Amino acid sequence: MEGAPLAISLGDPAGVGPELIAAAWAARDSNELLPFVVAGGPDVLRAAAERRGLNVPVRQVFHPNEAAECFAYALPALDGADGEYTPGAPSRAGAELALASLQEATGLARSGEVSGIVTGPVSKARLAEVGFDHPGQTEFVAYACGYAPTDAVMMLAGPNLRAVPITVHIALADVPKQLTSALIERKARTTAMALTRDFGIAQPRIAIAGLNPHAGEEGRMGDEEARIIRPAIDALRAEGLNVTGPFPPDAMFTARARETYDVALCMYHDQALIPLKALDFDQGVNVTLGLPIIRTSPDHGTAFAIAGTGQADPGAMIAAIRMAGECALRRQGLLDD
Amino acid sequence: MEGAPLAISLGDPAGVGPELIAAAWAARDSNELLPFVVAGGPDVLRAAAERRGLNVPVRQVFHPNEAAECFAYALPALDGADGEYTPGAPSRAGAELALASLQEATGLARSGEVSGIVTGPVSKARLAEVGFDHPGQTEFVAYACGYAPTDAVMMLAGPNLRAVPITVHIALADVPKQLTSALIERKARTTAMALTRDFGIAQPRIAIAGLNPHAGEEGRMGDEEARIIRPAIDALRAEGLNVTGPFPPDAMFTARARETYDVALCMYHDQALIPLKALDFDQGVNVTLGLPIIRTSPDHGTAFAIAGTGQADPGAMIAAIRMAGECALRRQGLLDD
Repeated sequence: MEGAPLAISLGDPAGVGPELIAAAWAARDSNELLPFVVAGGPDVLRAAAERRGLNVPVRQVFHPNEAAECFAYALPALDGADGEYTPGAPSRAGAELALASLQEATGLARSGEVSGIVTGPVSKARLAEVGFDHPGQTEFVAYACGYAPTDAVMMLAGPNLRAVPITVHIALADVPKQLTSALIERKARTTAMALTRDFGIAQPRIAIAGLNPHAGEEGRMGDEEARIIRPAIDALRAEGLNVTGPFPPDAMFTARARETYDVALCMYHDQALIPLKALDFDQGVNVTLGLPIIRTSPDHGTAFAIAGTGQADPGAMIAAIRMAGECALRRQGLLDD
Repeated sequence: MEGAPLAISLGDPAGVGPELIAAAWAARDSNELLPFVVAGGPDVLRAAAERRGLNVPVRQVFHPNEAAECFAYALPALDGADGEYTPGAPSRAGAELALASLQEATGLARSGEVSGIVTGPVSKARLAEVGFDHPGQTEFVAYACGYAPTDAVMMLAGPNLRAVPITVHIALADVPKQLTSALIERKARTTAMALTRDFGIAQPRIAIAGLNPHAGEEGRMGDEEARIIRPAIDALRAEGLNVTGPFPPDAMFTARARETYDVALCMYHDQALIPLKALDFDQGVNVTLGLPIIRTSPDHGTAFAIAGTGQADPGAMIAAIRMAGECALRRQGLLDD
């Protein structure tokens, strides 16, 4: 696996994925990106780069090990599934291409032919129409690794904040019902191990948020802190993890507070995503923790509405590629910190 | 009322209020602060300024109309309730002083002897011990004006964001139960009127958040958007208000999204307070909308733990005084925008 490139899946070809991959390749030197290969879609990439006005020669390759050689002068794309570039006009054929690319990239990571994957943005609704029956790419990658969906932990990471939502895509009214000490403990353990293995943090400082305003103010506004969150914190501390909280959620994301921890464990989707996107929108990376393969993704969607217009910012795609590369080097023992 | 100074209540004398008032006076010129008078506490202010190493002469006055004259060379404090300065050591006597100062300041605003008030931070638990039976200063000020507590709308304002929480100090599990279209409409109307009258925004752009992740994704994660929020938006639009939403909460606070509205209406406490404090912690102002008097407050607490140590940042106090002054000038027709 050492020296193997990263693989990037194309994402929906009608979205901003292809143009942002091309833009990331064009910015490879200033961002010190490790070599990567795109799983399929050479024609789509050529068209997307041209439409964006980028001078990006696309080189069709037949194996990831050809990527390193040509990466300096061309964007390598694996021979395989391909199609038409129709920005802003999603289609069934496009969804099939997105799925084929995701499957190809994941398979290459499983077999060790690439050192990790970065997944381009897809439309879950479109994928569902072509038989994809996972809630999202994270769950698919877990499944492809032979893991349960709940083993894969989603972390959002930007220059100013790392945050893990304990509950994710459920109604706010269901959050208090689905929150358990066991769930918090399991996700905290996975997070701690991944921050050590993939991010080089020997003893990660984990800050755990309360659920209620002011963390419930001693039970005056909700009792989940006493009933669910504190017992989880006590159990994790007993295992030797560096865990603090529960903190008043609104006090946890100030500039000063963020300096005191390596990751914030949040009780629900928007408790994690609101501060992350408020602070780091164009550089947010979605990282999947707890799996045998490395997987990152830019923290934005297909943005069909602006695909092909040149407006999409490649910052998050570049950050996702950088982060996957750093994690891969660390797993290979090639980074010290 | 024209030309009348602002009044500032001392806050708990064991907290950071007195030293921050003194620090704000010391920085009055660079921040272009209008004259203000402190409601009582001249001895506390002298001791707090000295402890912080500030050269702040305190001038005891007997009526607010003496403030403008001496403000350039001394911090005016009204003759009245006073006490000892015991930073970090809250007491019953201190709570009584905080309450007397708040009552005095509010009364002066009601009678028009001051043009608005800025309230220093108090401890609600301590105030309750001396017979204060309001949930907070906001509700007290509403009561003192003869208004219902629900008529007073709390807005948090910083350099990057204005946000109004629709529900406030309740458990997260109660938010979906207490959220109604009528509540959203009432707070939106009050907010719109206040932004025009006090902030000079002729047709305020009001962005309304969803409750659920991704604003419910067409009902897949919660139905409050369809059942409660959209009907409120439709009703407000029918009245001619410039209202948009419901927006996915995590997408609403990015730098680009924030440029598209003047105020965010949020469904719960932390949806508003997390982004506000993440972006603007040291400059956050709590403004009370919908009352006949102008009232602002720094968006932080008593911070007993650091009172008297010189660590507390006066940014929010200064911002609160500036904002109250601007609102007062606007109500008097002395500002154009």
